[in-house]
Amino acid sequence: MSSLLIRNGTVVTATDHYRADVLIRDEKVAAIAASLDESAERTIDAEGCYLFPGGIDAHTHMELPFMGTFASDTFHSGTLAALHGGTTTIVDFAIQTQGDSLEAAIQEWHRKADGHAVGDYAFHCAVTDFNEETRKEVPRVINEHGINSFKTFMAYKGALMVDDRQMFELMKELVKYGGIITTHAENGDMVDHLVQKFLAEGKTEPRYHVLSRPPICEAEASGRVIDLAFQAECPLYIVHMTCEESLARVKAATLRNQKVHAETCVQYLLLDDSLYFQDGFEGAKVVMSPPLRKKKDQEALWAAINQNLVQHVATDYSLNVRSEERR
Amino acid sequence: MSSLLIRNGTVVTATDHYRADVLIRDEKVAAIAASLDESAERTIDAEGCYLFPGGIDAHTHMELPFMGTFASDTFHSGTLAALHGGTTTIVDFAIQTQGDSLEAAIQEWHRKADGHAVGDYAFHCAVTDFNEETRKEVPRVINEHGINSFKTFMAYKGALMVDDRQMFELMKELVKYGGIITTHAENGDMVDHLVQKFLAEGKTEPRYHVLSRPPICEAEASGRVIDLAFQAECPLYIVHMTCEESLARVKAATLRNQKVHAETCVQYLLLDDSLYFQDGFEGAKVVMSPPLRKKKDQEALWAAINQNLVQHVATDYSLNVRSEERR
Amino acid sequence: MSSLLIRNGTVVTATDHYRADVLIRDEKVAAIAASLDESAERTIDAEGCYLFPGGIDAHTHMELPFMGTFASDTFHSGTLAALHGGTTTIVDFAIQTQGDSLEAAIQEWHRKADGHAVGDYAFHCAVTDFNEETRKEVPRVINEHGINSFKTFMAYKGALMVDDRQMFELMKELVKYGGIITTHAENGDMVDHLVQKFLAEGKTEPRYHVLSRPPICEAEASGRVIDLAFQAECPLYIVHMTCEESLARVKAATLRNQKVHAETCVQYLLLDDSLYFQDGFEGAKVVMSPPLRKKKDQEALWAAINQNLVQHVATDYSLNVRSEERR
Amino acid sequence: MSSLLIRNGTVVTATDHYRADVLIRDEKVAAIAASLDESAERTIDAEGCYLFPGGIDAHTHMELPFMGTFASDTFHSGTLAALHGGTTTIVDFAIQTQGDSLEAAIQEWHRKADGHAVGDYAFHCAVTDFNEETRKEVPRVINEHGINSFKTFMAYKGALMVDDRQMFELMKELVKYGGIITTHAENGDMVDHLVQKFLAEGKTEPRYHVLSRPPICEAEASGRVIDLAFQAECPLYIVHMTCEESLARVKAATLRNQKVHAETCVQYLLLDDSLYFQDGFEGAKVVMSPPLRKKKDQEALWAAINQNLVQHVATDYSLNVRSEERR
Repeated sequence: MSSLLIRNGTVVTATDHYRADVLIRDEKVAAIAASLDESAERTIDAEGCYLFPGGIDAHTHMELPFMGTFASDTFHSGTLAALHGGTTTIVDFAIQTQGDSLEAAIQEWHRKADGHAVGDYAFHCAVTDFNEETRKEVPRVINEHGINSFKTFMAYKGALMVDDRQMFELMKELVKYGGIITTHAENGDMVDHLVQKFLAEGKTEPRYHVLSRPPICEAEASGRVIDLAFQAECPLYIVHMTCEESLARVKAATLRNQKVHAETCVQYLLLDDSLYFQDGFEGAKVVMSPPLRKKKDQEALWAAINQNLVQHVATDYSLNVRSEERR
Repeated sequence: MSSLLIRNGTVVTATDHYRADVLIRDEKVAAIAASLDESAERTIDAEGCYLFPGGIDAHTHMELPFMGTFASDTFHSGTLAALHGGTTTIVDFAIQTQGDSLEAAIQEWHRKADGHAVGDYAFHCAVTDFNEETRKEVPRVINEHGINSFKTFMAYKGALMVDDRQMFELMKELVKYGGIITTHAENGDMVDHLVQKFLAEGKTEPRYHVLSRPPICEAEASGRVIDLAFQAECPLYIVHMTCEESLARVKAATLRNQKVHAETCVQYLLLDDSLYFQDGFEGAKVVMSPPLRKKKDQEALWAAINQNLVQHVATDYSLNVRSEERR
Repeated sequence: MSSLLIRNGTVVTATDHYRADVLIRDEKVAAIAASLDESAERTIDAEGCYLFPGGIDAHTHMELPFMGTFASDTFHSGTLAALHGGTTTIVDFAIQTQGDSLEAAIQEWHRKADGHAVGDYAFHCAVTDFNEETRKEVPRVINEHGINSFKTFMAYKGALMVDDRQMFELMKELVKYGGIITTHAENGDMVDHLVQKFLAEGKTEPRYHVLSRPPICEAEASGRVIDLAFQAECPLYIVHMTCEESLARVKAATLRNQKVHAETCVQYLLLDDSLYFQDGFEGAKVVMSPPLRKKKDQEALWAAINQNLVQHVATDYSLNVRSEERR
Repeated sequence: MSSLLIRNGTVVTATDHYRADVLIRDEKVAAIAASLDESAERTIDAEGCYLFPGGIDAHTHMELPFMGTFASDTFHSGTLAALHGGTTTIVDFAIQTQGDSLEAAIQEWHRKADGHAVGDYAFHCAVTDFNEETRKEVPRVINEHGINSFKTFMAYKGALMVDDRQMFELMKELVKYGGIITTHAENGDMVDHLVQKFLAEGKTEPRYHVLSRPPICEAEASGRVIDLAFQAECPLYIVHMTCEESLARVKAATLRNQKVHAETCVQYLLLDDSLYFQDGFEGAKVVMSPPLRKKKDQEALWAAINQNLVQHVATDYSLNVRSEERR
């Protein structure tokens, strides 16, 4: 029976902070007290330090194959990095290969993670091909795998995207079993047109990344999935919201008594799209989808956190490299 | 040179009404006067009558083949009926056959109408298959055929529906040449799912028509096409709006300085969905898409006319029968 | 019997324009025709000219005493100036003196106008002191004087302003007799505080005029009177709307099926608040209440006209001078 | 040094619940542990019980004189009752007498509470007469009395109500010293008119209470104070929100990045206005301002709690009786 005593730190909880000693036995908090009259195998003096619960990053992509690249971090290196920042749990995405089963995806992600990760982890299940076979898998994913968050993509047509009918039918299925729909909201058709238009015009500098994904692409898709979820009466979590226009759709939904769970990511709170307009290829470092937005959008995001309408700050961490550069 | 003198009627214009004599020469109004000191080949005494400009029905479907049925009226019988109600112009839809050209559709509709119609007529051009060939036809349709309204369907997937990319690219093309996008706004995917669900459950009574097309199907699609048009900077005309939820999207667009042209039809102003819930097959008489709505929606439509936000009242006239019953 | 024939002009109506001859007998349009075979006492060749109906300026202030100044134009000079611009009718405001009757105000304005004006004129009746006596005057003002528009001020506390109770009771009275409430919407309390704050700080340059009347003063009051009118079920006309924030309140009202009549003035469409920030006293030339706004507000106003949500463009004409400079 | 050990209870925190032993020394939690190896002066076995932090009722009125009545509970009886329900802290209102100082009110409330209350208590400071003297008291109330919440009434004209100017100036003052404005939002003028109208018509049954305070009275005032606070950049807490229409104003404010703290009360979540329409005088039992609303409003309130837009549930506890019936 292992034990650890952390003395004199300032404990920070969801609602409070206070000075206390914390005793951990077998990886569980066993006691919090003003002063503990206990001994432990190991004692740490946390005088002058904050003592937080471990952070949860609800949106990561370890070892993700994506458009000919790979996320460079493994579950080992990624969870190790996370631990260094105080994040003890990541929630990654087990992504279905079109034509294959959800089960296969979950198994694959377990192979990537199990025995390799050095922190806690859980999975969302990303549904890229919702059909009659997939439909039958839903209860097992929830009840046996303990995964109740089902991710869909409204962008990346022909690769990851589902259409509205697949989305709506998945929602109706999730309602039966207590699941939640989790969505990447960008209008894939609008994005695809703009990307190909710019490519055809030879406009391939990093700035065209943001120009090919204007806020309304995200706002439209956000509004649409909110409508679908309202009709299906399905709980909804929208990942990586970046802009005022999208937030406005979440806010409009409040008027019909609908709650939408909204996530943003640290980069959208701290960086802005001027980075895409730097000279040369420098802007490529911050190419991500959805792209960085404007100062006004940062203000709207911070306000939405303050208004309790954005409840999750994650990372969407995925540093992608070409195959030959994989760690 | 033909001439007609209508005496003593009460002339009604867009802004006024007054008693006057009206002289028509060669089918044009030649004079309006308190009292005309003229003679004509024919004189009508309109004492006690209103004298209107001819009505325009901006939404009709003569001889429309649709899901194995045909609109029962020809351009002859349809325009004759219209004239009896004071409607002297109809605007019909020349509907592209998928795989075929816009030109072919326009030619076909001219064949149906030319020499048969007894009133004035014009066409919207309905685009069901927007591709590189179709794209090239746009300027000619506008400049040679004088048709600047291009209709798209967001419902009837696999038959008439275009996807968002086709819609958006068509809009961008229309902007170049001064066209306007005209849209049937219903979320085809959501409708298709509900229709097949009810069919699978053996629910085929008329009431399931309205239950398979809830207001949010229309509101979502209306909001989406408004977003697409806003981004494309394309004028937009939404046909047959039926409900408060859709109107709310038009109203929301006003906040970003966007104007949307909205049409409703007489049936949505006068009838409500209780008709679908009559005994037996009686409700089938009012099966139309979108379906009739509730009293609150009628109130919202009348208010929107009063608020100047619905500017067009048309009919979407199309009384469909099986082929063997065609006139 | 006087007669006037205007030949060859281009007649412009609310919906159309066409070339025609127009015959006027006894100050009324007697005939409009492609070609009139008539003679008249006087004939004008309007070749190359537009022929409009006379304009109506629904918001003017002739000979208005205001805060120690006087509107410099009399009904004679003002209507003469109006005629030069094609405005043949002005609607002025007969303003009640607090403690005195509506009747007295109407009589006074008739004295100012009757026999002096050289164009047509009508009155709004401005209610600055709504009490039991005033209440009794309402039906007579409407039925005998033919004035159905009752103006109230939500600013100028202690001088012209009525409180919400007076406003609401007046509305309820107007509903009985078919009147309409017409309102100057600015939050008088907020304005007064800002004015006195700037005065106390010695900030008296023209720019402090606009800084003492921020858009939210107007938006708040607009929203409030819209709420009051909604509850009272009274038709509402808001004068001189200047900004996006106020228009947003009109637009929000459309969602509950309420119609608000909104007026803007030419100056708000054409000038902006940068004029207040000119050097010296130059900005004083455009001191008016509400003040000029920003470019974005001009865009919103033009869009609102296009959206049919602003239906009236007037002038609020009142060039005020000190008493000794009166014409 | 007193000590208390509570064993085996289920501890409920803001985010979690778990079984634990809790040791309390000198009225403070000294230790929380899975199993505490300690002894205490007193030990309670809480097996099968929940162990909560003490509740805070942020809105009570002990011994409040109001319109000729008195709140029947003293600080002793009221805090005792609160304790029985697990509420260990109440926040009462020290209400300024018009013409007197804030200091006097705070002193008076301390006299009522100090030495009598058997639970914890704090005060809001209710400002009914904001003038130059009151202005000077603000920093002392905050810094010396530790009261940073300043309550205003938008209803009860002539008794408690402040006008918009007093409200706005108070807000500006609070911003300087870190205060928050706390508001009873009802349009006093609209209410007063309706009350007197019903009285004049002899309509005095309990149902006329709710009819004299329609939702728009509350929504208008809520929207107005939100506007004032936005302009003043002052934090705002609106007490006892009851209805969908008011919540819509809070939600609209989110669009401009404004956060409003909204409170509702248990009675608005659990009871509805049908109680006013009972036979006889029964409805008088639930006469309160604002009044109970409809089922749809309850739904909107619960949803707003779920959406994190209503953050406070209080009681506005004040059971008023005639003076001679005081305890």
